[in-house]
Amino acid sequence: MIIQLSKEISSEQKEIIIHEVSKIGYHPSEVKTQFAHYIIAVGKAEFDIRKIGNLTGIIDIHRVSDPYKLVSKKWRVYDTEINLGDNIYINRKQLSIIAGPCSIESPEQIDHSIAHLKANNIRMMRGGVFKPRTSPYAFRGVGLEGLKVFSEKCKANGIKIVTEVMQVSQVEEMHDFVDIFQVGTRNAQNFNLLDALGKTDKAVMLKRGFSGTIEELLQAAEYVFSNGNENIILCERGIRSFETAYRNTLDLNAVPILKEKSHLPVIVDPSHGVGLRNYIEPMALAAVMSGADGIIMEVHQCPEKAISDGQQTLNYPEATQLYSHLHQAYALKKSFNGV
Amino acid sequence: MIIQLSKEISSEQKEIIIHEVSKIGYHPSEVKTQFAHYIIAVGKAEFDIRKIGNLTGIIDIHRVSDPYKLVSKKWRVYDTEINLGDNIYINRKQLSIIAGPCSIESPEQIDHSIAHLKANNIRMMRGGVFKPRTSPYAFRGVGLEGLKVFSEKCKANGIKIVTEVMQVSQVEEMHDFVDIFQVGTRNAQNFNLLDALGKTDKAVMLKRGFSGTIEELLQAAEYVFSNGNENIILCERGIRSFETAYRNTLDLNAVPILKEKSHLPVIVDPSHGVGLRNYIEPMALAAVMSGADGIIMEVHQCPEKAISDGQQTLNYPEATQLYSHLHQAYALKKSFNGV
Amino acid sequence: MIIQLSKEISSEQKEIIIHEVSKIGYHPSEVKTQFAHYIIAVGKAEFDIRKIGNLTGIIDIHRVSDPYKLVSKKWRVYDTEINLGDNIYINRKQLSIIAGPCSIESPEQIDHSIAHLKANNIRMMRGGVFKPRTSPYAFRGVGLEGLKVFSEKCKANGIKIVTEVMQVSQVEEMHDFVDIFQVGTRNAQNFNLLDALGKTDKAVMLKRGFSGTIEELLQAAEYVFSNGNENIILCERGIRSFETAYRNTLDLNAVPILKEKSHLPVIVDPSHGVGLRNYIEPMALAAVMSGADGIIMEVHQCPEKAISDGQQTLNYPEATQLYSHLHQAYALKKSFNGV
Amino acid sequence: MIIQLSKEISSEQKEIIIHEVSKIGYHPSEVKTQFAHYIIAVGKAEFDIRKIGNLTGIIDIHRVSDPYKLVSKKWRVYDTEINLGDNIYINRKQLSIIAGPCSIESPEQIDHSIAHLKANNIRMMRGGVFKPRTSPYAFRGVGLEGLKVFSEKCKANGIKIVTEVMQVSQVEEMHDFVDIFQVGTRNAQNFNLLDALGKTDKAVMLKRGFSGTIEELLQAAEYVFSNGNENIILCERGIRSFETAYRNTLDLNAVPILKEKSHLPVIVDPSHGVGLRNYIEPMALAAVMSGADGIIMEVHQCPEKAISDGQQTLNYPEATQLYSHLHQAYALKKSFNGV
Repeated sequence: MIIQLSKEISSEQKEIIIHEVSKIGYHPSEVKTQFAHYIIAVGKAEFDIRKIGNLTGIIDIHRVSDPYKLVSKKWRVYDTEINLGDNIYINRKQLSIIAGPCSIESPEQIDHSIAHLKANNIRMMRGGVFKPRTSPYAFRGVGLEGLKVFSEKCKANGIKIVTEVMQVSQVEEMHDFVDIFQVGTRNAQNFNLLDALGKTDKAVMLKRGFSGTIEELLQAAEYVFSNGNENIILCERGIRSFETAYRNTLDLNAVPILKEKSHLPVIVDPSHGVGLRNYIEPMALAAVMSGADGIIMEVHQCPEKAISDGQQTLNYPEATQLYSHLHQAYALKKSFNGV
Repeated sequence: MIIQLSKEISSEQKEIIIHEVSKIGYHPSEVKTQFAHYIIAVGKAEFDIRKIGNLTGIIDIHRVSDPYKLVSKKWRVYDTEINLGDNIYINRKQLSIIAGPCSIESPEQIDHSIAHLKANNIRMMRGGVFKPRTSPYAFRGVGLEGLKVFSEKCKANGIKIVTEVMQVSQVEEMHDFVDIFQVGTRNAQNFNLLDALGKTDKAVMLKRGFSGTIEELLQAAEYVFSNGNENIILCERGIRSFETAYRNTLDLNAVPILKEKSHLPVIVDPSHGVGLRNYIEPMALAAVMSGADGIIMEVHQCPEKAISDGQQTLNYPEATQLYSHLHQAYALKKSFNGV
Repeated sequence: MIIQLSKEISSEQKEIIIHEVSKIGYHPSEVKTQFAHYIIAVGKAEFDIRKIGNLTGIIDIHRVSDPYKLVSKKWRVYDTEINLGDNIYINRKQLSIIAGPCSIESPEQIDHSIAHLKANNIRMMRGGVFKPRTSPYAFRGVGLEGLKVFSEKCKANGIKIVTEVMQVSQVEEMHDFVDIFQVGTRNAQNFNLLDALGKTDKAVMLKRGFSGTIEELLQAAEYVFSNGNENIILCERGIRSFETAYRNTLDLNAVPILKEKSHLPVIVDPSHGVGLRNYIEPMALAAVMSGADGIIMEVHQCPEKAISDGQQTLNYPEATQLYSHLHQAYALKKSFNGV
Repeated sequence: MIIQLSKEISSEQKEIIIHEVSKIGYHPSEVKTQFAHYIIAVGKAEFDIRKIGNLTGIIDIHRVSDPYKLVSKKWRVYDTEINLGDNIYINRKQLSIIAGPCSIESPEQIDHSIAHLKANNIRMMRGGVFKPRTSPYAFRGVGLEGLKVFSEKCKANGIKIVTEVMQVSQVEEMHDFVDIFQVGTRNAQNFNLLDALGKTDKAVMLKRGFSGTIEELLQAAEYVFSNGNENIILCERGIRSFETAYRNTLDLNAVPILKEKSHLPVIVDPSHGVGLRNYIEPMALAAVMSGADGIIMEVHQCPEKAISDGQQTLNYPEATQLYSHLHQAYALKKSFNGV
């Protein structure tokens, strides 16, 4: 049950509501986001909703049968829109493209990437500065100092940054230099990190765990939302299966399901999904047709020389062609929904 | 190594070739299809290909490093086209749509289905008469007599039949009433059945095993081809993973990979793939964008009353709209490849 | 619902029972096995069981909520025992060991194997004569003629044969030379083959599909049982997962579950399970401790020279030591259950 | 390559070694643990090992082809032993049993648990105070204050504590109250947490990710070791597969593989593994037979009333019987290895 509170509610009125909710056997949690103030009550008993609905200070009340509440479309019927400023949005009305290298490598590489993005009218750039690596001896990213350079150059060019945050202490450190905090697949159930990101005012992109269920992804979003941050983007990036012909099983089935179950925007990462350069274009196009609101993809001036993930990274001419195809596919898909 | 033989080769010439191939440590198998005559030689030793290439009776010779040989695109550079007669083809040049009920139920149901297909200019109908069922107590199909009625009505309307064959003895029984033999996911590695289908002159549609790898699907095709039948269609229909939010993980990643590795047409079954009615349209559209040459899907006059698979079956208005969207998506995809 | 009929029931009495069962909305199937005669009725309606229970010709009646009926322990409380003749049994009272090569290769190899088994007091030998192979160009077994030699030698030495049957037509051909028909993992849902094996009087060992659920294995057994054959052995042999460090994920969790859900004996194949020689002993011992009633394993005089599966095959000294350890582990496990 | 340095090495000597290693194209990392001082050099070039081996300050030098180095048995031939003090060890010479509730609930519950452990001569207790929960609205543990009570009571009774740490900042907070830091399955690749735990002097138990490979588990251990902490225990606890008959697929195949590849002790968690009370005993016994050095399991005075995981928790009489069986199984297994 989601109880939306009036912004002017007094603490006495709130206490009464919490008391009444507890009395009927529900466990209440208070949630205050950028936009609104809620009591989330979890329980199973039958009761007459009017008993609570009549209390002073309540704007709205909804029963939500899903295990996740605030991210469920059963509650919020309109779609969430992420406003990144400077007229840059991620929503369900237009195709968002985020492109850039796997890892930030050097100032020159950032310059090249920005030039490529600007030439293609793309205003969001990806690029890792803290890299989760299976081996402790591998390159782990240029770190915070690299991020500062990355940020400075992007700000100067009106480009927003999406980059991975790996631990709680980085949230504050990175805050001023990031537009969208990305939670990587290995941290998909790092609940402390999700809690911390729920307390920032920056947008959060949640990658599905490589063996996370669709419901677990939505519960991860519930963590962020219930800690106070409504600006959440869901990202499908491939799961583990028995197949070894590609890197991950990009699970496009998740896209229409996430869009039906939730009001959050859904984007797809075909680079980590199928993970092989030849198949990025067909899978990105397929993602758009499955209903994706955006694509996040790896591009590099010279994929063969990229520090990481070169085998799944497009070069600029390949990427430029793909952007054009993606926009055409999105327009067609949109024309279907309008019928 | 694939050695294509002259059609006029004498048996003495053939014996010499087989002898020479064996001498260099390769294991030769003779293959005679509808269209050509080959020696397939499997082995690992290094040798001078000219030693064999100069023998009389050889048209062409190719080394193929893939574990499958005749179905590999490393050997045959042009795409295989299935000619079903009456100007009906499955190939890589146009979108093939196969639609119909999960199970054939009654003559009336066949009539309704045919009327629906004709109204939509679709010329291939699916419909099971032998049904593989997990429980021995479930409905197992109307059988051969039902197939005869199905066939008669389709022939009268210029419609081709795709239906599942479950065992070797059915191949001959069903032969005259079938245009495409479908091998179901549970028989994906029923090698005796594949052998038998390699000896028919009818086309064969191979469904990927629900935990079969892409390579295993291609090896299943190699069974059919090496027994003499070149008319093979590959079908992705979903694999098993840990996710329980849908019926199967429709693995569209397989589509561009199969198209790159093989010269055979590739179709996708979104009905068994995602397995939930609401998501058939987005996944079918995504399949086309991933490169599918065709879609096989379940439609029924009244899915709620279908004997089997109603939850994944579209009704006629839904299907009619989807056909139109599929053709538009295919046209767009084709325009990209032409660039 | 399982209705056990009197052996002296008249056809009129049976018709009345079938009629009454249908009247309450249940779908009746008649089953006649080596040992008894049943009506299996599947349905969901609530009804007063006495209405049927009082009809003449009924010995016993049980409601079974499992999707499988005759193989469920909810119905049959005693354990099924397979009697292979000559005082050789597979049951839940003693450890059954089945050993032998992956493939039958030659008369000499059979002789060596038999000598090894006799020296170790083992009376069941495995050995494939029809081999399911991923590639059509691989060795596919010595076939029926090889089986006849295999059978003759085993009969002369009081040893029972377990060997794979791949298709319906082989059931009759192989019948006289086989003691236990093995259904391989790729045919785990070859329902026509299961039907045919239900009509023989030989025991059947069902291997779990490499992506078959525990319930699907039990339903496969239900196919055999409901066609008339109660002599069924279940075999866990490894499933497919994302892990690539071994051949298959031997799923010992299935063992205690199968033993609780069913009354059939359960054996384990560690050779195909973990699939690497070094780990056969620990996994075989673990299987016994998980509750396995038997072990089927690959041994060869010289695994390095075996035609197939050498990397997972033990040599004779390794196997001899393992048999001894297995019996000690089984004795210990049995002592626990007696507490 | 692992280069073990003399404890008396001068910084100049070390610089020379690092310089020489870099010159041959290897990437050197310095590692200083509780016990020794190393340079780990990763690279692929061929070179004459004597060039480096002769440098002053080097005790020993090993090439290790595994992707993990310090945790590999190819380098360290003796087994790692964890000394927890008070004559409590985890090693490969005796069976370690760790038991206790899923969550710490109350002082009384701790008392009951300790009494149970002492009665069974068990000296390590598990119990979560920080609980990773899929839903943000679920009980998340009694926290640090609860841990202090837990610690006080255990210290008073000579019992060591194993409890989960979820984030970097907790490492220091929890340090004085913990004997073994447990890294949960969801944090199996939380590399920052692994780094931080590598800098403590407390032992670390690493649970395998529920879709982590065996190699990834060993690389996680490499993170801890290469940060300075050699006291690592590996724990198999079940992976995700398509099977839904149980909670997780306890993967005992991992046990003999981990023991062969690494020198670290390996324990098994059957409670989270199979996840159903009836099957804990057979799977725990099977784990011991597969080679496990220890078992970690959930016990509770009254599993039906446990706050979490009651369905997989044994009561005291069940647990007491299992401890006895486990010791008997371990003794038998040990007798085999001695042969």
